[in-house]
Amino acid sequence: MAAKRASCMLFRAAVQQQQKWAANSPSRNAGSSRSLIFQQQTSSFRNESFNSQRFFSSDSGTGKSYKIVGVLYKGREYAADNPKFLGCVENALGLREWLESLGHQYIVTDDKDGPDCELEKHINDMDILITTPFHPAYLTAERINKAKNLKLALTAGVGSDHINLPAAGSAGITVAEVTGSNITSVAEDELMRILILVRNFLPAWEQISNGEWDIAAAASRSSDLRDKVVATVGAGRIGRELLKRLKPFDCKQLLYWDRLSIGEENERETGATQETDLEALLAKSDIVALNIPLTEKTRKMFDKTLLSKFKKGAYLINNARGALVDEVAVKEACESGQLGGYSGDVWNQQPPSADHPWRHMPRHAMTPHLSGTTIDAQLRYSAGVKEMLDQFFKGEPFPEANVIVKGGRTAAQYQ
Amino acid sequence: MAAKRASCMLFRAAVQQQQKWAANSPSRNAGSSRSLIFQQQTSSFRNESFNSQRFFSSDSGTGKSYKIVGVLYKGREYAADNPKFLGCVENALGLREWLESLGHQYIVTDDKDGPDCELEKHINDMDILITTPFHPAYLTAERINKAKNLKLALTAGVGSDHINLPAAGSAGITVAEVTGSNITSVAEDELMRILILVRNFLPAWEQISNGEWDIAAAASRSSDLRDKVVATVGAGRIGRELLKRLKPFDCKQLLYWDRLSIGEENERETGATQETDLEALLAKSDIVALNIPLTEKTRKMFDKTLLSKFKKGAYLINNARGALVDEVAVKEACESGQLGGYSGDVWNQQPPSADHPWRHMPRHAMTPHLSGTTIDAQLRYSAGVKEMLDQFFKGEPFPEANVIVKGGRTAAQYQ
Repeated sequence: MAAKRASCMLFRAAVQQQQKWAANSPSRNAGSSRSLIFQQQTSSFRNESFNSQRFFSSDSGTGKSYKIVGVLYKGREYAADNPKFLGCVENALGLREWLESLGHQYIVTDDKDGPDCELEKHINDMDILITTPFHPAYLTAERINKAKNLKLALTAGVGSDHINLPAAGSAGITVAEVTGSNITSVAEDELMRILILVRNFLPAWEQISNGEWDIAAAASRSSDLRDKVVATVGAGRIGRELLKRLKPFDCKQLLYWDRLSIGEENERETGATQETDLEALLAKSDIVALNIPLTEKTRKMFDKTLLSKFKKGAYLINNARGALVDEVAVKEACESGQLGGYSGDVWNQQPPSADHPWRHMPRHAMTPHLSGTTIDAQLRYSAGVKEMLDQFFKGEPFPEANVIVKGGRTAAQYQ
Repeated sequence: MAAKRASCMLFRAAVQQQQKWAANSPSRNAGSSRSLIFQQQTSSFRNESFNSQRFFSSDSGTGKSYKIVGVLYKGREYAADNPKFLGCVENALGLREWLESLGHQYIVTDDKDGPDCELEKHINDMDILITTPFHPAYLTAERINKAKNLKLALTAGVGSDHINLPAAGSAGITVAEVTGSNITSVAEDELMRILILVRNFLPAWEQISNGEWDIAAAASRSSDLRDKVVATVGAGRIGRELLKRLKPFDCKQLLYWDRLSIGEENERETGATQETDLEALLAKSDIVALNIPLTEKTRKMFDKTLLSKFKKGAYLINNARGALVDEVAVKEACESGQLGGYSGDVWNQQPPSADHPWRHMPRHAMTPHLSGTTIDAQLRYSAGVKEMLDQFFKGEPFPEANVIVKGGRTAAQYQ
């Protein structure tokens, strides 16, 4: 009980530290808009005099042997082709040799769904679960209830909404992710998707393999990005990196919607302006990118009503989470032309069904969940997972920004 | 003869002015690396005391009625859908009403090839020919020989290599294009193609419509652009605009190959470094974009030998001209993996045959010739053509940077 209270106080101290980062050092802010939300929601906390920037892991220590389960996607023939391709079952985040040399058991599988899957076989006695947002093992309340030994759930990447966080919190499980590992990768990917839609690349590319040459069909819907109004809904680290990359395109206006300002320096650097009225922002934007986390507040936020507030024919980019939008409403908006196109790599359920309507709706530029799992991102999140495992084994604290659930408390961005 | 000499002197004066621009005002330089070549090749000219920045059109004047032929691509159903879609036959660069109100005859067709095409019917008596690089009417020596009345060949866009320039020069035809109209459009498009190849977008997108979900297949070849070495071969206005857009991507190195430096200010703004040894540049670049004009010196410059100097698996982007590369060598390099991918919108012959090997070579991201004919670019080059026609009718000079052939002289970048 005393330990729990101390841990809670440390969490608060870390939140306050986070608050300082948000105010003073933009480059060190946590991913997405979470630092801003943190800042707002924690402002009533007492200013306890902790100087630490970290949490302490209470259930860990040196010398123990743990059963660690990793759920990754299969690499198949690609696993051997590229030794940097760490994020697959076969290459196991590059951790096998190290973990086994420390005496831990390390099971890695892609078999994650249904009552007879490999994951279920280890639910009862695993100590640590490593998952990803790309091939998510859904850690439901039912599974958490069975996982009596589970102490730590690490997300290799960013985004832990595949985990029932309140249930994890109640069960005393610590949930952490590799905050920051995906920022560059996702921001680059968003800019690519904006250009693909605005310039009408895909129908033009399809002509080539079909033996066609029809400039009119492609050019009549192809525009420059210059002089367009581009907005990001959410201006955390990914949103800000996107704005930075948009700057030299000489857009008519760069807008962002977030509860708090990104600050004068960031505004000057990116040329972006805050718009606090979301509907006003949507009404004037030619391109809108979503960069907010999925919470119960944001689930299906972009429904038919909100999509009707967009400028007719605007493009919507969503590399954040599929469930931020109503999937039927998006499909209908693409069909009606209310959206000029929709592009993203995130789906409500992953993998989506083979006949998911987004696979065939007009003017989509959808892919599997990829943007945060480039080879470079894999190197970053593998290193981040290793660092946290090492800290856990040594009884040391995690980097504060990585912690999602700890001591029963859920980080503000997931509330 | 005297008129010809005067015109020639004016051309030289303009070249000298161009030279000043190249030296003093980077933002006003002509497209591609042409201003630099201009600067070098004209340095031995005598410094005649002309202060004009323009050429005078000698074959023009007020009050005459001209037969003007335009060769554009057909817009079909798309022509009516979008009133800004000016670059098609139906919308005729938006010039019909204006030209006819001035008493000129204006014929617009897409029928440009073979002895019985519409263009051939007007060859003998047309005064002005308007063409584009997108759906090029090849103005061969044979056609020029027939075109006894032809005074002016205007390219709606940038790139007049579909015209036999020496033959045009000998026949006293003035050739001009809308320099600068494509810079933004092409630079944006190149950045899009870089991201599409580096991040391995297309195989991922294809999975979706095929009902698949195979993250490994896509992710194992997907990288960030950050920390890669990116080079432009040619650092004229398009190359520089590309470098500007690459700046916030935190690439490991941005390189350019050009005869002359882009200047300290541009280097500071873009973070790019000049590399004068082309093979050295190719050997260290992960991504290479071509931004040089097609001349007899650059035709098939990127042949099998030069492609073998690339870093294994590098990406090649070519929105400049298809004939800069050896098309068989490119196909073979994509097949062998020497090139990790090839993307561009330009082909040696346009349209290419329905079974052109580039339509099916591995890891291509080819499209029809589109990048300089976005709706925004169409507005710019339509306005540019109108401006030059107006100047021609009034006997006024063209903007110097637009002039490709005049008084028998060909601009340096096409020599």
